[in-house]
Amino acid sequence: MTVLSSVLSINGSRLNASIDRLARVGKLPNGDICRLAFTSEDLQARYLVQQWMVEAGMTVRTDAAGNLIGRYEGTVEDAPALATGSHIDTVPSGGCYDGVLGVLAGIEVVRTLREHKIRLKHPIEVIVFTDEESSMIGSQAMAGTVVMNAPERYQPKVGQPIESCLEAIGGDWDNLPSAQRSREDMVAFVELHVEQGAVLEHTHTEIGVVQGVVGMLRQMVTIKGQANHAGTTPMEMRQDALVAAAKVILAVQEIALSMPTLPVATVGYLTATPNAVNIVPGQVELSVDMRDLSQDCLDAMMSRLMRQLDAIATETNTEIDMAPILCVQPTLAAPLIQKTIESVCQALDLSCRYMPSRAGHDSLEIGRITDMGMIFVPSQEGLSHSGAEYTSPEQCTQGANVLLQTLVNLDEAYAC
Amino acid sequence: MTVLSSVLSINGSRLNASIDRLARVGKLPNGDICRLAFTSEDLQARYLVQQWMVEAGMTVRTDAAGNLIGRYEGTVEDAPALATGSHIDTVPSGGCYDGVLGVLAGIEVVRTLREHKIRLKHPIEVIVFTDEESSMIGSQAMAGTVVMNAPERYQPKVGQPIESCLEAIGGDWDNLPSAQRSREDMVAFVELHVEQGAVLEHTHTEIGVVQGVVGMLRQMVTIKGQANHAGTTPMEMRQDALVAAAKVILAVQEIALSMPTLPVATVGYLTATPNAVNIVPGQVELSVDMRDLSQDCLDAMMSRLMRQLDAIATETNTEIDMAPILCVQPTLAAPLIQKTIESVCQALDLSCRYMPSRAGHDSLEIGRITDMGMIFVPSQEGLSHSGAEYTSPEQCTQGANVLLQTLVNLDEAYAC
Repeated sequence: MTVLSSVLSINGSRLNASIDRLARVGKLPNGDICRLAFTSEDLQARYLVQQWMVEAGMTVRTDAAGNLIGRYEGTVEDAPALATGSHIDTVPSGGCYDGVLGVLAGIEVVRTLREHKIRLKHPIEVIVFTDEESSMIGSQAMAGTVVMNAPERYQPKVGQPIESCLEAIGGDWDNLPSAQRSREDMVAFVELHVEQGAVLEHTHTEIGVVQGVVGMLRQMVTIKGQANHAGTTPMEMRQDALVAAAKVILAVQEIALSMPTLPVATVGYLTATPNAVNIVPGQVELSVDMRDLSQDCLDAMMSRLMRQLDAIATETNTEIDMAPILCVQPTLAAPLIQKTIESVCQALDLSCRYMPSRAGHDSLEIGRITDMGMIFVPSQEGLSHSGAEYTSPEQCTQGANVLLQTLVNLDEAYAC
Repeated sequence: MTVLSSVLSINGSRLNASIDRLARVGKLPNGDICRLAFTSEDLQARYLVQQWMVEAGMTVRTDAAGNLIGRYEGTVEDAPALATGSHIDTVPSGGCYDGVLGVLAGIEVVRTLREHKIRLKHPIEVIVFTDEESSMIGSQAMAGTVVMNAPERYQPKVGQPIESCLEAIGGDWDNLPSAQRSREDMVAFVELHVEQGAVLEHTHTEIGVVQGVVGMLRQMVTIKGQANHAGTTPMEMRQDALVAAAKVILAVQEIALSMPTLPVATVGYLTATPNAVNIVPGQVELSVDMRDLSQDCLDAMMSRLMRQLDAIATETNTEIDMAPILCVQPTLAAPLIQKTIESVCQALDLSCRYMPSRAGHDSLEIGRITDMGMIFVPSQEGLSHSGAEYTSPEQCTQGANVLLQTLVNLDEAYAC
């Protein structure tokens, strides 16, 4: 364990000033930030970040997926990169920290190393992934998981086809496979990110050591009963789709609560038809979203859900169908990186706890091709995807210092 | 028991021809009927019915509530009327039988008596009540239950204020109290109506002897939880408004099923906010509609619901509020009229069963001021408020014959 904290730490004011500066790009009158990928706001932010990378002593390139990659060379020739980074696009009403912190902390790490005239053995790469909030085309291209004959699956929020979107930021759909990386040229990837949940705050913990990014099974459930007069239809003659839906909602909750790995499961969307005060509901559509680090757990939840839906359909005299919307396999963080982050926290006297990331991240994809790790800092009240999301300057600084020390230690841990 | 069936029965073809004729007024291309109260279609139908009343030998008047009242005089001077009737307005996508059958069967009864040169001791009145499907202003004015200083409560579906609507059909809001009737001038009211449910069809019964029109408690329930990320919010930190709503839906069902009087209770309307696949629902609004013949039962259901909402709010860490939308007291049918209808069915060799009316009817209001009874005939598959509602010509004829014999018998039963 090499801890350079006494002599080496990042410049917190500089980091937070850059976060504040980037927050001005796409800021709406209500304080939310709208910096959708491929918009002029996204281009403006990319330009700014590119400048900062160059000023920090990095060479900068854009790959075929539009990923912006700053590189700070190491001392060992041909050594694979130690990579970090995240994204700078936002949801339509986003905040200042989601993604941004990981990118700007990466640049700040390089600034700090360069100020101290330090080069690691491995080159350091700071990556700005393209369109994390929607298509995830950037990290998927780098992981080689893009389905090349189905560009329509990567339709960005901005509206134009993915091919012309990529072209606008210097990418090239047809050449996407060239963006693919591997363990040979990227020995590890460490992403610093805000938690987007309230676990760290509730447990008064400064740093989250991420065990992996959860997989996700998302289904749309359709329940068909029979719409009928709410007065004249006796209880025992009803085929009430909303009563069936209520049983599904509670079954989904019960399934999640009963699994030992503490997965989450949510019915977030529900519409009833005809949705009138005086009519027994004839049809309901609802979504089921299940997430866990363990694919076995996801599979078990899915099997139990299917059995429960059958039982509920019989019990309520309804028809219940389920169709998959999304299926993402979990990615585990490399044990070496987890352990390194924990040791760094101990050396820096920061409290930490192991936890899964239950939100999706670029790390989910990058973890499929190389060792991956993530560092979480607290989100006030767990707020996320909102102009109100907040992580204090001190917490941002702590996270960036953990990132710096983690990269320095991994540089030793991974042979060149 | 005077049964004149061997010598006296209504003309079924004539009755059904008039039902078919009226069905042409307001018929939409898809077969539904749109004859909203106070529209030109309503006026056209009123004109037709008025003509038929006059041709049947009735004098016709319109009261201040726009109720069209045909009167066939009796033999005893100053005897109170034996009244029948229903309504001819429809919901926006209605059918041919709802309301219409009761009005046209009443006219057919008078035609039949007149053909046979029979006058009863009591005058017979056939009443077309105004706007049964929305404001119920006609029967409420006759029952004296209109709140005169709140005309906005009686806003008809057609959009104009109730005052000008009434004026358009020969009524007069300011003079509404003059429309009020009492036992002194209306000794009984008997309404023939389609069931609008499937109980008669399912039990292979020809006639329903209505025990009363159920009362109704309708509430809007608001559940406030906390919208949150469906991934990053652990199950035990959630304040999931939709999970709370699921428990409310099942509680409402369980409460209805546990009461001995077989009430109905329905959650027909539900909206979740923000209603997104990946967000824990922060707020839900849902309606609760409870109906029963017994006010004690309604009160007991309400008390149990309130206790359950408290328990669910605690259990799910949400806030639950409930606000009344509608509160209608039940009206029981007069035992004498129920018994008479049953005897008539036996004499006519028609199967019958006692049952509540769980839909609202003009009888609900008229039963507050005088003896009331209702006769139900089957609705195919229980369909109602749809162009697909269907009661066969034979069933309509059977209902009208029961109405005829019931009025003839009540003429004897009630002293003049």
